[in-house]
Amino acid sequence: MAQGPFERLQTMLAEDMAAVNHLIATRMASRHAPRIPEVTAHLVEAGGKRLRPMLTLAAANLFGYGGTDHHLIAATVEFIHTATLLHDDVVDESDQRRGRPTANLLWDNKSSVLVGDYLFSRSFQLMVETGNLRVLDILANASAVIAEGEVLQLSAAQDLATTQAVYLQVIRGKTAALFSAACEVGGVIAGASDVQTNALFAYGDALGVAFQIVDDLLDYGGASASLGKNTGDDFRERKLTLPVILAVEKANAPERKFWERVIEKGEQAEGDLERAMQIMATHDTLTQTRKQALAWVAQAKAALDPLPDNDLKTALADIADFVVSRVV
Amino acid sequence: MAQGPFERLQTMLAEDMAAVNHLIATRMASRHAPRIPEVTAHLVEAGGKRLRPMLTLAAANLFGYGGTDHHLIAATVEFIHTATLLHDDVVDESDQRRGRPTANLLWDNKSSVLVGDYLFSRSFQLMVETGNLRVLDILANASAVIAEGEVLQLSAAQDLATTQAVYLQVIRGKTAALFSAACEVGGVIAGASDVQTNALFAYGDALGVAFQIVDDLLDYGGASASLGKNTGDDFRERKLTLPVILAVEKANAPERKFWERVIEKGEQAEGDLERAMQIMATHDTLTQTRKQALAWVAQAKAALDPLPDNDLKTALADIADFVVSRVV
Repeated sequence: MAQGPFERLQTMLAEDMAAVNHLIATRMASRHAPRIPEVTAHLVEAGGKRLRPMLTLAAANLFGYGGTDHHLIAATVEFIHTATLLHDDVVDESDQRRGRPTANLLWDNKSSVLVGDYLFSRSFQLMVETGNLRVLDILANASAVIAEGEVLQLSAAQDLATTQAVYLQVIRGKTAALFSAACEVGGVIAGASDVQTNALFAYGDALGVAFQIVDDLLDYGGASASLGKNTGDDFRERKLTLPVILAVEKANAPERKFWERVIEKGEQAEGDLERAMQIMATHDTLTQTRKQALAWVAQAKAALDPLPDNDLKTALADIADFVVSRVV
Repeated sequence: MAQGPFERLQTMLAEDMAAVNHLIATRMASRHAPRIPEVTAHLVEAGGKRLRPMLTLAAANLFGYGGTDHHLIAATVEFIHTATLLHDDVVDESDQRRGRPTANLLWDNKSSVLVGDYLFSRSFQLMVETGNLRVLDILANASAVIAEGEVLQLSAAQDLATTQAVYLQVIRGKTAALFSAACEVGGVIAGASDVQTNALFAYGDALGVAFQIVDDLLDYGGASASLGKNTGDDFRERKLTLPVILAVEKANAPERKFWERVIEKGEQAEGDLERAMQIMATHDTLTQTRKQALAWVAQAKAALDPLPDNDLKTALADIADFVVSRVV
């Protein structure tokens, strides 16, 4: 059977990813506090695609980078991601992540907060080791933008006045900022030109936005709108994601009353998720959400234009298609 | 009336602290998420002594530093401190900080976690602006040691087997690591020699340990053992601090049973805090705790020896006395 785009990229980066995985395993250790590697291992070993560190490696290798600093940076990126997952699960009061119980459920919120802080600090130690101030600048900025996006999401939740513009701001922060930084620093460490690092940033930004839109669409069962056991979380958490924002925009009076009750007041009863799905079907918002994701994918691929033509560039373009293929 | 040691240091650093306070106010802003400055202002405006940034400024000025990077570093140090306070209050489920309701109570745990993350990222942005890799290295390491100390405290809590050595490890991490780093980076930015920056580290480390021992002693009313409305928190949270560790070391059989019930099992009833105070009085553990704090103060002052003799060196020695004067 032919490999999919994700597996092809994995194969191309296999040697580098082995080095990154070794770094991750070594640096998540703690001499004094055994709770740290326990919590981290639970999350790290559960898998996750490690897409973000792969983007860093691909971006560096695309320019024939011959050093090893991209391993440090890729591990940095994964640590930042893992730290935000630990804190997200506390904030969202989640009980499932990657098909396993979350750390906040297995241990407690305290451990998730503090181990997240530890990983975040470790990520800064790793990037400082590169001695590259531009890399440090980009990743420190990305961290601030991520946290800002998360806080913005907090105040936008349950607020029916949330516009598509605010939604875009939120997902650019909480998701796309790390994608774009991961790509950009790969180019920076490899000595790419400004035009090229800007192209990598733009690719990562559009890819990250598409990725999050698809995630939010999948929470309503994807474009096929088939609800399963992993769907409806955003509805229950009263999050204003694109499928709902589009439906609120077009709501008639009774629909508006419905959204006010279930999202703003949080009074949800049996059958409300199904009613929400019906309203979204009426206004075709899942299809429109998917169209927006596809537009971002096209933008991501177009952004790659200034980069040298090679297998890795093709692989990055294919990854953009892959991200949205989950909801085709 | 003569100024106390703290006010004298404040006067000596007034101009620099004005610049630091301006940086803090500017950098805690957020264009997109107004919740961030709200939460931060609540904590920052509540005061707090800003002892840590003052240590950085004093250490730099002690060598006649003429630049402005010490302002960036001092603001970094205060941001790291503020971020850990926000997360600590979530972890400890506190409802009071600096005489005001905590942010987790006024807003929610989510806001405290995420705004803490934001300030932590902002602190890294500030330090990257100095472009000094040694400063970045020291502060990134300190952040990891702080988080490690907090996690260690989590697993040591409620565990009667916690030794004085583990306690020292915890407070070296959660408190002293930022004191020592704050002092060391001041010297580094001013171009001090290795002997001198090591001396600054040792001073900050001993000062931080003394500071935390005094804090833990004050939670039992200080050496005079007078309980007030701000005492007994550690007892209720079942934390193994030095006064209790010393009492557990010397416990007879019925006392041991008492500690097992109130600390390990957490079964606390009316009168138990008073009983704990009685037991500690029997074994004189509050006096012994104070003696240990005084020994660390002496060590802090001795560490200053290799530094150039001037008013700031005298002020740092006086600050060490001041820290423990709260429980004389």
